[in-house]
Amino acid sequence: MNTFGHLFRVTTFGESHGPAIGCVIDGCPPGIAIAPEEFAHDLARRATGKTRHTSARREADEVEILSGVYEGVTTGTPIALLVRNTDQRSKDYSAIARQFRPGHADYAYWQKYGIRDPRGGGRSSARETTMRVAAAVIAKKWLAGRGVQVRGHMAQIGDVLPRSHDWAVVEDNPFFWPDAAQVPELESYMDALRKSGDSVGARVTVVADGVPPGWGEPVYGKLDGELAAAMMSINAVKGVEIGDGFASVAQKGTQHRDVMTPGGFLSNHAGGVLGGISTGQQVVVSVAFKPTSSLRLPVEGVDVDGNVVDIVTTGRHDPCVGIRATPICEAMLALVLIDQALRHRAQCGDVGEVPHRIPGRVDG
Amino acid sequence: MNTFGHLFRVTTFGESHGPAIGCVIDGCPPGIAIAPEEFAHDLARRATGKTRHTSARREADEVEILSGVYEGVTTGTPIALLVRNTDQRSKDYSAIARQFRPGHADYAYWQKYGIRDPRGGGRSSARETTMRVAAAVIAKKWLAGRGVQVRGHMAQIGDVLPRSHDWAVVEDNPFFWPDAAQVPELESYMDALRKSGDSVGARVTVVADGVPPGWGEPVYGKLDGELAAAMMSINAVKGVEIGDGFASVAQKGTQHRDVMTPGGFLSNHAGGVLGGISTGQQVVVSVAFKPTSSLRLPVEGVDVDGNVVDIVTTGRHDPCVGIRATPICEAMLALVLIDQALRHRAQCGDVGEVPHRIPGRVDG
Amino acid sequence: MNTFGHLFRVTTFGESHGPAIGCVIDGCPPGIAIAPEEFAHDLARRATGKTRHTSARREADEVEILSGVYEGVTTGTPIALLVRNTDQRSKDYSAIARQFRPGHADYAYWQKYGIRDPRGGGRSSARETTMRVAAAVIAKKWLAGRGVQVRGHMAQIGDVLPRSHDWAVVEDNPFFWPDAAQVPELESYMDALRKSGDSVGARVTVVADGVPPGWGEPVYGKLDGELAAAMMSINAVKGVEIGDGFASVAQKGTQHRDVMTPGGFLSNHAGGVLGGISTGQQVVVSVAFKPTSSLRLPVEGVDVDGNVVDIVTTGRHDPCVGIRATPICEAMLALVLIDQALRHRAQCGDVGEVPHRIPGRVDG
Amino acid sequence: MNTFGHLFRVTTFGESHGPAIGCVIDGCPPGIAIAPEEFAHDLARRATGKTRHTSARREADEVEILSGVYEGVTTGTPIALLVRNTDQRSKDYSAIARQFRPGHADYAYWQKYGIRDPRGGGRSSARETTMRVAAAVIAKKWLAGRGVQVRGHMAQIGDVLPRSHDWAVVEDNPFFWPDAAQVPELESYMDALRKSGDSVGARVTVVADGVPPGWGEPVYGKLDGELAAAMMSINAVKGVEIGDGFASVAQKGTQHRDVMTPGGFLSNHAGGVLGGISTGQQVVVSVAFKPTSSLRLPVEGVDVDGNVVDIVTTGRHDPCVGIRATPICEAMLALVLIDQALRHRAQCGDVGEVPHRIPGRVDG
Repeated sequence: MNTFGHLFRVTTFGESHGPAIGCVIDGCPPGIAIAPEEFAHDLARRATGKTRHTSARREADEVEILSGVYEGVTTGTPIALLVRNTDQRSKDYSAIARQFRPGHADYAYWQKYGIRDPRGGGRSSARETTMRVAAAVIAKKWLAGRGVQVRGHMAQIGDVLPRSHDWAVVEDNPFFWPDAAQVPELESYMDALRKSGDSVGARVTVVADGVPPGWGEPVYGKLDGELAAAMMSINAVKGVEIGDGFASVAQKGTQHRDVMTPGGFLSNHAGGVLGGISTGQQVVVSVAFKPTSSLRLPVEGVDVDGNVVDIVTTGRHDPCVGIRATPICEAMLALVLIDQALRHRAQCGDVGEVPHRIPGRVDG
Repeated sequence: MNTFGHLFRVTTFGESHGPAIGCVIDGCPPGIAIAPEEFAHDLARRATGKTRHTSARREADEVEILSGVYEGVTTGTPIALLVRNTDQRSKDYSAIARQFRPGHADYAYWQKYGIRDPRGGGRSSARETTMRVAAAVIAKKWLAGRGVQVRGHMAQIGDVLPRSHDWAVVEDNPFFWPDAAQVPELESYMDALRKSGDSVGARVTVVADGVPPGWGEPVYGKLDGELAAAMMSINAVKGVEIGDGFASVAQKGTQHRDVMTPGGFLSNHAGGVLGGISTGQQVVVSVAFKPTSSLRLPVEGVDVDGNVVDIVTTGRHDPCVGIRATPICEAMLALVLIDQALRHRAQCGDVGEVPHRIPGRVDG
Repeated sequence: MNTFGHLFRVTTFGESHGPAIGCVIDGCPPGIAIAPEEFAHDLARRATGKTRHTSARREADEVEILSGVYEGVTTGTPIALLVRNTDQRSKDYSAIARQFRPGHADYAYWQKYGIRDPRGGGRSSARETTMRVAAAVIAKKWLAGRGVQVRGHMAQIGDVLPRSHDWAVVEDNPFFWPDAAQVPELESYMDALRKSGDSVGARVTVVADGVPPGWGEPVYGKLDGELAAAMMSINAVKGVEIGDGFASVAQKGTQHRDVMTPGGFLSNHAGGVLGGISTGQQVVVSVAFKPTSSLRLPVEGVDVDGNVVDIVTTGRHDPCVGIRATPICEAMLALVLIDQALRHRAQCGDVGEVPHRIPGRVDG
Repeated sequence: MNTFGHLFRVTTFGESHGPAIGCVIDGCPPGIAIAPEEFAHDLARRATGKTRHTSARREADEVEILSGVYEGVTTGTPIALLVRNTDQRSKDYSAIARQFRPGHADYAYWQKYGIRDPRGGGRSSARETTMRVAAAVIAKKWLAGRGVQVRGHMAQIGDVLPRSHDWAVVEDNPFFWPDAAQVPELESYMDALRKSGDSVGARVTVVADGVPPGWGEPVYGKLDGELAAAMMSINAVKGVEIGDGFASVAQKGTQHRDVMTPGGFLSNHAGGVLGGISTGQQVVVSVAFKPTSSLRLPVEGVDVDGNVVDIVTTGRHDPCVGIRATPICEAMLALVLIDQALRHRAQCGDVGEVPHRIPGRVDG
């Protein structure tokens, strides 16, 4: 199961330190103008090596379009994207080829398949998410043509919460943080963390504006259900919330229910989804990332023969994987939305065919 | 998309107040002994009308097996289960056929399809979950034959948390509550809530013991990803956590990582899943339910013509939908596990074929 | 795999002599008016017991709509259809419960599942096709709304070929035969065959008029590929042809290629499909049915213990299964077309969105 | 829909004259030893430019393994295979970029997508089948480990039929012809055809020996149904037969039915499939190929503006596409078999788990 989506299908392949990673996008609508350069921006946003707060992998991530685009326009045939792994440095990992790093997929892969590619985590490396971001560049372009915009920001790092929220500054700091004033504080926080050799978790929030009502497939292909699966498919994710999420547990019904008026909804506790279908409000998803498992601090572990071993993970590692997760969460949101849009169009026809709508409020 | 699962596929149908609800289970292994009576226990656990704390729908939910079982044994052909709706009471709902109840799927369905069945919420009613529980009875039986057991309990109601945890008492109180001493307190809490006409949210935790390592499909069919989608597909769910979930955000890596020893894991912050694959530890899933949206308390709303209307929901409603969600969450956990088990068997062969395992700790 | 279709998904269930057979149609467009009576016509066309030339099962095949239709209109939610088996007569079959009838699925099912329902062939009975015809009633209605019409006729029985072709007479004789003058000859042919206790094969041709260009998914979901799978999924089918089919083997390219003019194609050797996509011409499919395997004439066989036994099949059997296959082939053609139409709409938008078309000739 | 298979999933991409073609194989069992060289043999068998009887494309078709193989063994993660298009010669095709070649997919693609890649037929070129053959190399290796062997031969070219059948000579002549004595006759036949500028159709027969009973999914994933779809997905295929195929139409039941004895079946009219499930006999599939549509002989046609134009196809073309179709049909047979084998294993467990079998006769 290395394919995401039902009608806009993205199949990814590749290991962290194999010859290349790539994806095949099948079911893409024809007629979308796309150029290789357009991938650069988002790939840079997620790229490792971007700041001293993220690990030191240094490669261009040049995307080659192998198929499905003719004279700069998608043709409706499968679009294959390829990125060569130029900076493999497998030596970093050779030491632990027969060991199971705690908190890593090493043990689980070995148990499942009886074999694993230990180079840089192989298939379980976050390297795979490069192709999600690349595929989402095309998805976002189609969505933008329908007035749908996807954005995200960091909502928590360790126990640090934003004191204010300003979309304008999110892209101007290495943490996708919505409060510029806190950035210096976060810088020192991360520096201290890196020195200590430890890591910390994070929470990312992504939103979609302009989603029309009616996207989402009850009962088992619900918009929120697909979003939950999409986010949980990202490495290190341990939780997903839609709208108020777990806060809903302590809420009263009178408090949670979003009142509708002819002018739209008066609140958005639901996060833009009711009964698994979009309401026309802003779609709001929040994602929990666990702290990086790869630490310099040694830990007792076992090897494939069941012997006790000391595990020390060298090589590149982020003290907070969540930092570069924002573009990945945005990508998954975009991939879910285009897939649901096409599924809705298949069954119910195009937007124009459905009845008059009550506009939902779509501000943050 | 009314089908759940890839190899153990459950397709449900039916509206809350139509002639019947049912499901078709396709891909079920042959040779499982199953009798109609076996559905009664779990259906009773989820049934409405069970206590004064849940709504008053009174029907037997008699399951008729229409196919796929010969002389009490599954044959490998599709198993169709049917439950007639004997207590329809559509009069309760006729009043609001052209209104959109806040917090309900009414508006979203109408926007998607341009038509909706207003009787008792139609397809969006929790009535549909009856068939998930029924299908899971068969799944649980197959899993039990492989030493896998699925259980659940309520973990929070409103702002009330369990003060102790005893699996033994969970089935002995109407709240699936793990602390018997708190039950009287919860009784009065719910009574007061019902009198007030309001509702409250809840948190349910379900666990699976005995899951062997290796179940789960990286990258997009991860065990935790499928669990997230499964739980989010249940009505009123707004959040899903695996293991420590959102608590991981504030954790340090040294704190979160589960140390392995030849005797097994020393902790289970991961919730039994690494890299999307089971580790052999207990699989732990926690689910957030929003408060019931159907309230006696009137609220301003709109109708299909965009007019302002006063909405008062009469009829049967739980002040806390979470109360009877525990068996439903267990069912979804069981359905995900059998599906992943079959998928693992397809690609990697049977358990016997995979190498020696390090036993994971599987205590509660 | 008891589900047919990708977006218009039909899942069937039920055994020949179980309590009921049925289907669930998922992904059906909302807003299609449909009434229970509308199923009667096509079900009668395929029904056994229609003439002395088909087997004697006598039951009404009353279709009950269990869900997905509100006030006579499809709602977009799953449509469940149920037909009770009122005439089960399992006694006819009990004798051979442990024997493998030659040419039947008995042996294959037993080898696959280690268990089988012997009553009337269980799941492998042609009884299952009742639900394909029922589901296709809805599909045909949607297609008719887009100007697409599906028809079929018998093209060969044993070595008898039509001497002329008149669509007008096809529905007026029990053989769906296009040459009225030959009907008496066929009557005596079938009578002699029945007396002899033997059976014979048949060829059925089905066509679709009004299919717009552009339906069909290259490369693996080709319109002709889906048609081949659809027809081959019918019991007793051994071959499928599109357009000229096997006759193309001996043709020259200059002879086979269909010349295009501004007025349309000048011929239709391709059968309305090029590169897996409809051309706007008539879609032409021809299907080969083997002779019925259930014969009164005894034959040596084996039982489940590997003993040699004499096999005599009693009970109802058609001397030519092909006779009532015409409506079934039409149904599969309709189910493929609606599925492809929805898939096309998902990726490429509605017909209106694609460029000016050169009209293809759509006569027979 | 550029993915073939359900559990052994092959997704192909690439246009005839784009930068590259490739595929991603998902769901492949781990532990299969595979080396790049192993692809060379089968790719050479299907390669164009092999003899003067096939078109002159001259390239090595070097397969690069991009992922899913570690130290020469499959890891269970997706296997990406890449072949660069080194001999593009797009100039051959530029002339007809705006014309619709009769018998080609040009018109259908343009109608579906509103855009097409005209270079060498783009996505609709037989070039895509290279990746089917490559993927099947891995499938065949897994099948061989279970005693399943796939073979094929040409069964008819134009109106020429084999006068004898000897598997030993099939690989020793450019026509995969089973009668060595006829090869000179075929040589002159093809030379004359090429001089005339015309083309001719062909029939290919492929068989699988050693298939155990029980593979195949009733009702809609039947082994024969999947085979029909698989073969029909190959360019230029117009018909598919299982076993006796269309010959069954004129057969009597007493003649067609395959008698079983404790020693196995006494005949194989069914082609190794009953009720959609393998019987343990040889699986026999026959495929009809239409004559090549690309001819030097000019023909009247239309262009994208609906003008009448003279169409002359220059560039490389086979007078008989069927000549190199044998390895492609074998590949599709292998891909269907491994997929069905994994699906059977998922539901019913491994071969060892199913009961004692009656051996079927498996001679040619």
